[in-house]
Amino acid sequence: MRAAFPTAVTVEIAASDRKPAVTKSAARKTTLATVDLPLLFIEIHDSEIPWLKIFVRRSVREFSECTAVEKTAIWDALDVIEREMLDYYRPEKINIASFGNMLPQVHWHIMARFKEDSYFPEPMWGPRQREGVLALPPMEPFLENLRRKLLPES
Amino acid sequence: MRAAFPTAVTVEIAASDRKPAVTKSAARKTTLATVDLPLLFIEIHDSEIPWLKIFVRRSVREFSECTAVEKTAIWDALDVIEREMLDYYRPEKINIASFGNMLPQVHWHIMARFKEDSYFPEPMWGPRQREGVLALPPMEPFLENLRRKLLPES
Repeated sequence: MRAAFPTAVTVEIAASDRKPAVTKSAARKTTLATVDLPLLFIEIHDSEIPWLKIFVRRSVREFSECTAVEKTAIWDALDVIEREMLDYYRPEKINIASFGNMLPQVHWHIMARFKEDSYFPEPMWGPRQREGVLALPPMEPFLENLRRKLLPES
Repeated sequence: MRAAFPTAVTVEIAASDRKPAVTKSAARKTTLATVDLPLLFIEIHDSEIPWLKIFVRRSVREFSECTAVEKTAIWDALDVIEREMLDYYRPEKINIASFGNMLPQVHWHIMARFKEDSYFPEPMWGPRQREGVLALPPMEPFLENLRRKLLPES
Protein backbone atom coordinates (compact mmCIF):
# COMPACT_ATOMS: atom_id res chain seq x y z
CA MET A 1 0.00 0.00 0.00
CA ARG A 2 2.48 2.59 -1.14
CA ALA A 3 -0.40 5.02 -1.43
CA ALA A 4 -0.38 5.31 2.35
CA PHE A 5 3.15 6.71 2.21
CA PRO A 6 3.23 9.54 -0.32
CA THR A 7 6.71 10.17 -1.62
CA ALA A 8 6.32 13.68 -2.98
CA VAL A 9 3.73 15.39 -0.79
CA THR A 10 4.73 17.21 2.37
CA VAL A 11 2.54 16.28 5.32
CA GLU A 12 2.94 19.29 7.58
CA ILE A 13 1.52 18.58 10.99
CA ALA A 14 4.00 20.42 13.16
CA ALA A 15 2.08 22.48 15.66
CA SER A 16 4.80 25.05 16.28
CA ASP A 17 5.63 27.77 13.79
CA ARG A 18 9.18 26.49 13.55
CA LYS A 19 9.87 24.86 10.23
CA PRO A 20 10.46 21.14 10.47
CA ALA A 21 13.67 19.90 8.94
CA VAL A 22 12.33 18.48 5.70
CA THR A 23 15.07 16.32 4.22
CA LYS A 24 14.35 14.58 0.96
CA SER A 25 17.22 12.22 0.44
CA ALA A 26 17.10 9.18 -1.78
CA ALA A 27 20.00 7.66 0.10
CA ARG A 28 18.17 7.92 3.42
CA LYS A 29 14.81 7.15 1.79
CA THR A 30 13.33 9.96 3.81
CA THR A 31 10.60 11.88 2.12
CA LEU A 32 9.08 14.28 4.60
CA ALA A 33 9.10 15.60 8.10
CA THR A 34 6.15 14.70 10.24
CA VAL A 35 6.48 15.92 13.82
CA ASP A 36 8.70 18.76 14.95
CA LEU A 37 9.65 18.61 18.65
CA PRO A 38 12.07 20.78 20.62
CA LEU A 39 14.83 18.15 20.91
CA LEU A 40 13.78 15.72 18.21
CA PHE A 41 12.17 15.55 14.83
CA ILE A 42 10.31 12.57 13.43
CA GLU A 43 10.25 11.56 9.79
CA ILE A 44 8.49 8.94 7.69
CA HIS A 45 10.71 6.30 6.15
CA ASP A 46 9.42 5.40 2.69
CA SER A 47 8.38 1.75 2.93
CA GLU A 48 5.51 -0.67 2.41
CA ILE A 49 5.08 -0.76 6.21
CA PRO A 50 4.41 2.07 8.71
CA TRP A 51 7.97 3.15 9.56
CA LEU A 52 9.02 6.29 11.39
CA LYS A 53 12.46 7.63 12.30
CA ILE A 54 13.19 9.72 15.39
CA PHE A 55 16.22 12.03 15.02
CA VAL A 56 17.98 13.90 17.80
CA ARG A 57 18.41 17.51 16.64
CA ARG A 58 21.77 18.06 18.33
CA SER A 59 24.77 16.56 16.56
CA VAL A 60 25.50 13.42 18.56
CA ARG A 61 26.93 10.09 17.45
CA GLU A 62 26.00 7.56 20.11
CA PHE A 63 22.91 7.18 22.25
CA SER A 64 24.87 7.28 25.51
CA GLU A 65 26.19 10.73 24.51
CA CYS A 66 22.66 12.15 24.56
CA THR A 67 21.65 14.24 27.54
CA ALA A 68 19.24 12.77 30.06
CA VAL A 69 16.52 15.03 28.67
CA GLU A 70 17.20 13.88 25.10
CA LYS A 71 17.14 10.24 26.17
CA THR A 72 13.83 10.69 27.95
CA ALA A 73 12.41 12.46 24.90
CA ILE A 74 13.46 9.52 22.69
CA TRP A 75 11.98 6.85 25.00
CA ASP A 76 8.77 8.82 25.36
CA ALA A 77 8.47 9.22 21.59
CA LEU A 78 9.16 5.51 21.01
CA ASP A 79 6.57 4.60 23.61
CA VAL A 80 3.89 6.87 22.17
CA ILE A 81 4.58 5.86 18.57
CA GLU A 82 4.52 2.17 19.46
CA ARG A 83 1.18 2.48 21.24
CA GLU A 84 -0.33 4.42 18.34
CA MET A 85 1.01 1.93 15.78
CA LEU A 86 -0.40 -1.00 17.75
CA ASP A 87 -3.75 0.71 18.16
CA TYR A 88 -4.14 1.96 14.60
CA TYR A 89 -2.47 -0.68 12.41
CA ARG A 90 -2.89 -3.80 14.59
CA PRO A 91 0.48 -5.18 13.44
CA GLU A 92 1.95 -8.56 14.29
CA LYS A 93 4.91 -6.94 16.08
CA ILE A 94 6.68 -3.65 16.60
CA ASN A 95 10.36 -3.47 15.65
CA ILE A 96 12.78 -0.83 16.98
CA ALA A 97 16.38 -0.22 15.93
CA SER A 98 19.17 2.32 16.12
CA PHE A 99 22.21 1.65 13.91
CA GLY A 100 23.71 4.81 12.37
CA ASN A 101 26.59 2.99 10.70
CA MET A 102 26.15 5.01 7.52
CA LEU A 103 24.73 8.13 9.16
CA PRO A 104 26.42 8.50 12.57
CA GLN A 105 23.76 10.82 14.01
CA VAL A 106 21.53 9.36 16.73
CA HIS A 107 18.27 8.21 15.16
CA TRP A 108 15.82 5.45 15.95
CA HIS A 109 13.68 3.39 13.61
CA ILE A 110 10.26 2.20 14.70
CA MET A 111 8.30 -0.11 12.43
CA ALA A 112 4.94 -1.89 12.44
CA ARG A 113 5.49 -5.41 11.10
CA PHE A 114 2.95 -7.75 9.53
CA LYS A 115 3.05 -11.45 8.67
CA GLU A 116 2.29 -10.49 5.07
CA ASP A 117 5.02 -7.86 4.69
CA SER A 118 7.97 -8.59 2.36
CA TYR A 119 10.46 -9.44 5.12
CA PHE A 120 8.55 -10.93 8.07
CA PRO A 121 9.74 -12.57 10.30
CA GLU A 122 13.17 -11.25 9.28
CA PRO A 123 14.13 -7.69 10.20
CA MET A 124 13.48 -5.15 7.44
CA TRP A 125 17.24 -5.25 6.74
CA GLY A 126 17.26 -9.03 6.28
CA PRO A 127 16.58 -11.27 3.28
CA ARG A 128 13.35 -10.63 1.42
CA GLN A 129 10.81 -13.39 2.05
CA ARG A 130 8.02 -12.65 -0.42
CA GLU A 131 6.22 -9.95 -2.36
CA GLY A 132 4.46 -8.18 0.46
CA VAL A 133 0.73 -7.62 0.11
CA LEU A 134 -0.58 -5.20 2.73
CA ALA A 135 -3.96 -3.51 2.97
CA LEU A 136 -3.28 -0.70 5.40
CA PRO A 137 -5.52 2.21 6.36
CA PRO A 138 -4.40 5.73 5.35
CA MET A 139 -1.55 7.17 7.37
CA GLU A 140 -2.99 10.63 7.99
CA PRO A 141 -5.30 9.74 10.93
CA PHE A 142 -2.41 7.88 12.56
CA LEU A 143 -0.19 10.95 12.18
CA GLU A 144 -2.92 13.19 13.56
CA ASN A 145 -3.24 11.01 16.66
CA LEU A 146 0.51 10.99 17.01
CA ARG A 147 0.66 14.76 16.88
CA ARG A 148 -1.98 15.04 19.56
CA LYS A 149 -0.02 12.71 21.84
CA LEU A 150 3.45 14.13 21.21
CA LEU A 151 2.40 17.79 21.15
CA PRO A 152 -0.15 17.86 23.98
CA GLU A 153 0.06 21.62 24.22
CA SER A 154 -1.34 22.05 20.70
CA MET B 1 37.98 -13.75 17.42
CA ARG B 2 35.54 -16.45 18.33
CA ALA B 3 37.77 -17.30 21.26
CA ALA B 4 36.45 -14.23 23.03
CA PHE B 5 32.95 -15.73 23.02
CA PRO B 6 33.12 -19.26 24.40
CA THR B 7 30.17 -21.36 23.31
CA ALA B 8 30.23 -24.08 25.93
CA VAL B 9 31.56 -22.50 29.10
CA THR B 10 29.24 -20.84 31.57
CA VAL B 11 30.50 -17.43 32.62
CA GLU B 12 28.80 -16.96 35.96
CA ILE B 13 29.12 -13.39 37.14
CA ALA B 14 25.76 -12.93 38.77
CA ALA B 15 26.25 -11.39 42.18
CA SER B 16 23.06 -12.69 43.71
CA ASP B 17 22.60 -16.29 44.72
CA ARG B 18 19.67 -16.67 42.37
CA LYS B 19 20.48 -18.86 39.42
CA PRO B 20 20.62 -17.00 36.12
CA ALA B 21 18.43 -18.38 33.37
CA VAL B 22 21.01 -20.20 31.30
CA THR B 23 19.43 -20.98 27.97
CA LYS B 24 21.48 -22.80 25.40
CA SER B 25 19.47 -22.65 22.23
CA ALA B 26 20.89 -23.05 18.74
CA ALA B 27 17.89 -21.24 17.32
CA ARG B 28 18.46 -18.22 19.51
CA LYS B 29 22.24 -18.55 19.31
CA THR B 30 22.39 -17.87 23.00
CA THR B 31 25.07 -19.70 24.88
CA LEU B 32 25.20 -18.42 28.42
CA ALA B 33 23.74 -16.05 30.93
CA THR B 34 25.98 -13.21 32.00
CA VAL B 35 24.22 -10.81 34.35
CA ASP B 36 21.22 -11.62 36.48
CA LEU B 37 19.17 -8.59 37.52
CA PRO B 38 15.85 -8.41 39.37
CA LEU B 39 13.73 -7.47 36.34
CA LEU B 40 16.09 -8.42 33.52
CA PHE B 41 18.72 -10.90 32.55
CA ILE B 42 21.51 -10.29 30.08
CA GLU B 43 22.97 -12.93 27.77
CA ILE B 44 25.81 -13.12 25.28
CA HIS B 45 24.80 -13.63 21.67
CA ASP B 46 27.32 -15.89 19.96
CA SER B 47 28.94 -13.74 17.26
CA GLU B 48 32.25 -12.46 15.93
CA ILE B 49 31.40 -9.08 17.52
CA PRO B 50 30.62 -8.16 21.15
CA TRP B 51 26.85 -8.66 21.23
CA LEU B 52 24.63 -8.79 24.31
CA LYS B 53 20.90 -9.34 24.68
CA ILE B 54 18.77 -7.86 27.46
CA PHE B 55 15.64 -9.86 28.29
CA VAL B 56 12.71 -8.74 30.41
CA ARG B 57 11.96 -11.55 32.91
CA ARG B 58 8.20 -11.04 32.94
CA SER B 59 6.33 -12.45 29.95
CA VAL B 60 5.63 -9.40 27.82
CA ARG B 61 5.34 -9.06 24.06
CA GLU B 62 5.85 -5.37 23.26
CA PHE B 63 8.06 -2.74 24.81
CA SER B 64 5.17 -0.40 25.54
CA GLU B 65 3.58 -3.16 27.64
CA CYS B 66 6.52 -3.07 30.06
CA THR B 67 6.04 -1.33 33.37
CA ALA B 68 7.74 2.03 33.90
CA VAL B 69 10.25 0.32 36.18
CA GLU B 70 11.03 -2.33 33.56
CA LYS B 71 11.47 0.33 30.88
CA THR B 72 13.84 2.31 33.06
CA ALA B 73 15.80 -0.86 33.85
CA ILE B 74 16.16 -1.56 30.11
CA TRP B 75 17.29 1.97 29.23
CA ASP B 76 19.73 2.01 32.11
CA ALA B 77 21.17 -1.34 31.06
CA LEU B 78 21.47 -0.23 27.43
CA ASP B 79 23.18 2.97 28.54
CA VAL B 80 25.68 1.20 30.79
CA ILE B 81 26.44 -1.55 28.26
CA GLU B 82 26.93 0.98 25.48
CA ARG B 83 29.37 3.04 27.56
CA GLU B 84 31.32 -0.06 28.57
CA MET B 85 31.45 -1.35 24.98
CA LEU B 86 32.68 2.04 23.71
CA ASP B 87 35.28 2.26 26.43
CA TYR B 88 36.57 -1.29 26.23
CA TYR B 89 36.28 -2.26 22.56
CA ARG B 90 36.58 1.17 20.88
CA PRO B 91 34.14 0.15 18.13
CA GLU B 92 33.19 2.19 15.10
CA LYS B 93 29.55 2.35 16.21
CA ILE B 94 27.09 0.86 18.66
CA ASN B 95 23.96 -0.77 17.22
CA ILE B 96 20.76 -1.40 19.20
CA ALA B 97 17.67 -3.30 18.11
CA SER B 98 14.50 -4.91 19.44
CA PHE B 99 12.57 -7.11 16.99
CA GLY B 100 11.05 -10.21 18.58
CA ASN B 101 9.32 -11.36 15.40
CA MET B 102 10.37 -14.96 16.00
CA LEU B 103 10.51 -14.76 19.80
CA PRO B 104 7.76 -12.36 20.93
CA GLN B 105 9.25 -11.70 24.35
CA VAL B 106 10.72 -8.23 24.92
CA HIS B 107 14.47 -8.36 24.40
CA TRP B 108 17.02 -5.87 23.16
CA HIS B 109 20.19 -6.48 21.17
CA ILE B 110 23.22 -4.27 21.72
CA MET B 111 26.25 -4.73 19.48
CA ALA B 112 29.70 -3.18 19.09
CA ARG B 113 30.34 -2.75 15.35
CA PHE B 114 33.68 -2.47 13.56
CA LYS B 115 34.61 -1.46 10.02
CA GLU B 116 36.30 -4.84 9.65
CA ASP B 117 33.39 -6.97 10.84
CA SER B 118 31.60 -9.21 8.33
CA TYR B 119 28.56 -6.96 7.88
CA PHE B 120 29.63 -3.34 8.41
CA PRO B 121 28.13 -0.88 7.49
CA GLU B 122 25.04 -3.08 7.09
CA PRO B 123 23.13 -4.18 10.20
CA MET B 124 24.13 -7.63 11.47
CA TRP B 125 20.91 -8.93 9.87
CA GLY B 126 21.82 -7.53 6.45
CA PRO B 127 23.88 -8.89 3.56
CA ARG B 128 27.36 -10.13 4.43
CA GLN B 129 30.04 -7.76 3.16
CA ARG B 130 33.28 -9.65 3.73
CA GLU B 131 35.05 -12.25 5.84
CA GLY B 132 35.37 -10.33 9.06
CA VAL B 133 38.82 -10.12 10.64
CA LEU B 134 38.68 -8.78 14.18
CA ALA B 135 41.36 -8.69 16.84
CA LEU B 136 39.37 -8.08 19.99
CA PRO B 137 40.51 -8.19 23.60
CA PRO B 138 39.13 -10.96 25.84
CA MET B 139 35.54 -10.51 26.97
CA GLU B 140 35.96 -11.30 30.65
CA PRO B 141 37.31 -7.89 31.81
CA PHE B 142 34.47 -6.21 29.91
CA LEU B 143 31.94 -8.45 31.65
CA GLU B 144 33.54 -7.77 35.01
CA ASN B 145 33.25 -4.01 34.48
CA LEU B 146 29.67 -4.47 33.38
CA ARG B 147 28.82 -6.41 36.49
CA ARG B 148 30.31 -3.69 38.69
CA LYS B 149 28.22 -1.04 36.94
CA LEU B 150 24.95 -2.98 36.77
CA LEU B 151 25.20 -4.55 40.23
CA PRO B 152 26.61 -1.67 42.27
CA GLU B 153 25.62 -3.31 45.53
CA SER B 154 27.97 -6.22 44.88
